[in-house]
Amino acid sequence: MKHIAIIGYGVVGGGITAVIEENKAFIERMVGDCVNVKYILDLREFPDSPYGDRVVHDIETLIDDRDISVVCETMGGSHPAYEYSVALMRSGKSVVTSNKEVVASFGDELLRCAAENGVTYMFEASVGGGIPVIRPFTTSLAGDSIGKIDGILNGTTNYILTRMKESGCSFEEALSEAQTLGYAERNPTNDVDGIDSKRKIMILAALASGKLVDNDCAYAETMTKVSAADNKAAEKWGGAVKLVASAVIDHANDKLALYVCPQFVPFSCPLAHISDVYNGVMVNSPVTGDVMFYGRGAGRFPTAGAVVDDVCAILSGAAAAETTPVFEKTSRGAVPFAELKFEYYVRTRPESKSDALEFLNSTCGKVQVIDSEDSGVLEAIVGEANLDEIRHICDNIGAVESVIRVWKNA
Amino acid sequence: MKHIAIIGYGVVGGGITAVIEENKAFIERMVGDCVNVKYILDLREFPDSPYGDRVVHDIETLIDDRDISVVCETMGGSHPAYEYSVALMRSGKSVVTSNKEVVASFGDELLRCAAENGVTYMFEASVGGGIPVIRPFTTSLAGDSIGKIDGILNGTTNYILTRMKESGCSFEEALSEAQTLGYAERNPTNDVDGIDSKRKIMILAALASGKLVDNDCAYAETMTKVSAADNKAAEKWGGAVKLVASAVIDHANDKLALYVCPQFVPFSCPLAHISDVYNGVMVNSPVTGDVMFYGRGAGRFPTAGAVVDDVCAILSGAAAAETTPVFEKTSRGAVPFAELKFEYYVRTRPESKSDALEFLNSTCGKVQVIDSEDSGVLEAIVGEANLDEIRHICDNIGAVESVIRVWKNA
Repeated sequence: MKHIAIIGYGVVGGGITAVIEENKAFIERMVGDCVNVKYILDLREFPDSPYGDRVVHDIETLIDDRDISVVCETMGGSHPAYEYSVALMRSGKSVVTSNKEVVASFGDELLRCAAENGVTYMFEASVGGGIPVIRPFTTSLAGDSIGKIDGILNGTTNYILTRMKESGCSFEEALSEAQTLGYAERNPTNDVDGIDSKRKIMILAALASGKLVDNDCAYAETMTKVSAADNKAAEKWGGAVKLVASAVIDHANDKLALYVCPQFVPFSCPLAHISDVYNGVMVNSPVTGDVMFYGRGAGRFPTAGAVVDDVCAILSGAAAAETTPVFEKTSRGAVPFAELKFEYYVRTRPESKSDALEFLNSTCGKVQVIDSEDSGVLEAIVGEANLDEIRHICDNIGAVESVIRVWKNA
Repeated sequence: MKHIAIIGYGVVGGGITAVIEENKAFIERMVGDCVNVKYILDLREFPDSPYGDRVVHDIETLIDDRDISVVCETMGGSHPAYEYSVALMRSGKSVVTSNKEVVASFGDELLRCAAENGVTYMFEASVGGGIPVIRPFTTSLAGDSIGKIDGILNGTTNYILTRMKESGCSFEEALSEAQTLGYAERNPTNDVDGIDSKRKIMILAALASGKLVDNDCAYAETMTKVSAADNKAAEKWGGAVKLVASAVIDHANDKLALYVCPQFVPFSCPLAHISDVYNGVMVNSPVTGDVMFYGRGAGRFPTAGAVVDDVCAILSGAAAAETTPVFEKTSRGAVPFAELKFEYYVRTRPESKSDALEFLNSTCGKVQVIDSEDSGVLEAIVGEANLDEIRHICDNIGAVESVIRVWKNA
C-alpha cells in the first residue's frame, strides 16, 4: 500500500479523496498498488467526514512519517504552502500541487529543491483544472520550440463574458449571477483583474521558455470595463471579447512578452468559441502548428483528478522518467508591454465623424469601420500601435468609450 | 549517439529527417544524446536527398544492425508493415508508427509482441497527426473511466464540409478543390466513406476500453450524400454538419458502440467550430468532464513531429515508465449500430405537409420543425429512433431527400 497525505481539505482537497475512491481500480492498475490517504492536514476538524480520523494539525506529523511518499498541497496562497513544500521535499517526499500562486512565485526554487532532494514536484492542476496541459508541455510538445501561447485560463471571467454576450447584460449583473452560482468569489479581484490568469500564463511560459519572469514583468489588465456594446461590436466584426492570457516567446533573440487583457478574438480562432466556465490553451510551434487543449478549467473533480494523475505518475515511476522542467527566475529579455504593437477596437463619440475618420486614416496603417450608423458613435479597428501611439490616437478622436486590443495570431 | 531508421520515405518519413534536423538541440536535451537516422528503407532511390546514402532496400539490414534501437514505420498499409514491425521487435528494436491501418488491424498483436520482446510499440502519430492525444489517453486520462469519445478525425472530409458550408458549393465541387490543393487523394474513398476515421476511433476506443473491436463491429457511413441544403438547415438549427467518429463505452455493462457518420453538431459543442483540415478529439469522463484536443490532424510536419516525440520518449526512457496499453481483439459487448437510438434531421417533400407532420407527431417523441416555409419542403428534427424505426418514419412522410443523425452528448 502506498501512503499519501493532503494539505488543505477544501474543495480540491476533498475532491482528491473522492476521486481516489471513485477510480480505485484504475489507480491500482496504474500504480501497481493501492493508494491510501493517511493524513489530512487542515486547521479545521471534519467530524462528519469518513476521513475525520485522518485529520492532523501539525505539518511535522507528515514530515516525520516515513510511510508518506507523496503529499498533495491544495491549500492555496504562497505561505505557508511554500515553506511546507520545501520542508516536505527536504524530508524525501514528493509534492503535487494545484496552487498556481506558489508555482508562479516560487516554481523555480521548488523545482530546484525537488531536484536537490531526489524527489518530484508536479503541478498539472495549477493550470487548466482537469485539462492535461502541463504534461503535454513537458512530454509531447517538449521537442518543439513553442513560439506563442494563448489561453482562456480563468473560468469565472469567461463565464461572465459569455453571459454578457448571450443576455446583453452588464458586467455587474453577470458578476452577481456568477457569484450566486458559486463561480465567482465575493471578492472577485484575482479573477476579474487578470491576476489568476497572469499566474497561469507565467507558468506555461516558464515551461516553454525555461524562464519564470518576475511578477511585474507580466502585464495584467482588468476585464471589468468590457461592456455589452463591446460584445455587440465584436460579434458584428466577426468574433468575441475574451480575457486572453498570451505569451510570445522569441527563442532566437531570447525575448519574452507576457500579457493578460481583454482581446477581440476572431471566430477563426478556436478560443473565440470557448464559452461558460471552460478553459482553452492554444499553443503554436513551427513543427506542430496550432494545438489547443480544452476543458473545464476549474471545479472540484477536474482539478482533483489532475492532482491524482500527478500522484499516480509519481507512484508508478512514470514521472521519474519524464523530463523535469527547470525554471530560471529572471527578467532577462522580458519585453515591456508598452512596446508591444496591437490593432485596437475603438469606440468613440467624436464631435465630427468625418474629422475623426480623417485623423485615423492619416495616422493608422489600418482603419476598419465596424459601425458608424448608430448616431454619434464611431466603432473601428485601428492600428497597429504601441501604448503611446494608441493613447495619442485616442486623444485625438473625441470621447473614447472603449479601447480593446485585437488578438494577434502567432 | 543513438541510431534510428525510417521505413517508407514518403511525406511523413521525409518530415522525420527534417524535424530531427530542425529540433536538434531540443531533442538532444530530452534524449541526453544526439539522434542519427542511420537507414532509410524504401523501394526507391533518393539521389538528390542529403540522406540518399542512407537508403537501403532490404529489411534485413535494419534487423541485423544492433546499433539501431528504434525504427519509425511510416509506410502505411497493413502489409508488409505488420510483418516488418514484428520482425524488428523480435530482434530487440522498438517501433514507432504513424500507420493507423496497421494499428487498427493488428494493434493487439503488435503491443503483445513488444511486451514479449521487452521493447516498445508507440503510435501517437496514427491519430490526430501532431495533436498529443494517444499519450494523454495513456497518462493524464488513464486514471479516469472514459465513457464517450467524439472526434473529427479526418482533415480531408472536414475541409470538404467547411468549404461546402462557407461557399454553398456541392460535395463534388469541394472534393475537386481539396484534390487540387493536395488535401484529398485522387481516390478519396478511405476519407469520404469514413474508413480512415473508423480506424482512428477504433484505436482511441481500444485505449479507453482495452478492446480493439473487429473491423465489422464498427460502423462507417459515407459523407458524400451531405448537400448544401443540409448545411443550411444545420446552421438554421444552430450547428454544423460534421463527419464525427464516436465511441460509447459502458464500462459497468461491458458494452461498446463505435460509429462514424455525418452528424448535426450543435454550436454548444466545440466540435461544431472545427474548420478546414483541423481535427479535434473530445473525451468525456465522470471526473474530468469534457476535454478536447485540437490541432492539425495531418500534414508532413505535425505527423512527423508526433513520430519524433515517440522516438524521444523511447530513447529518454520515459516511455518505459509509462503504462503500456494492452489491447484485446474482441467483438464481445459490441452493440450493433442498428440498435442505437438517435434524433435525426430529416428533409422531405411530402405530398401534404400537415399529414406528414401529423404522422411525425404521432410517431416520434420529438418533432422540431426547422423549416416549412420553403414551398414543398419540410425540414425537422425527429426521434429518438433506431435504424428500423427511422426507416419506418421515412417511408411514411413522402420523398425523403436527407436523413442525418443528431450528435448526442455523453
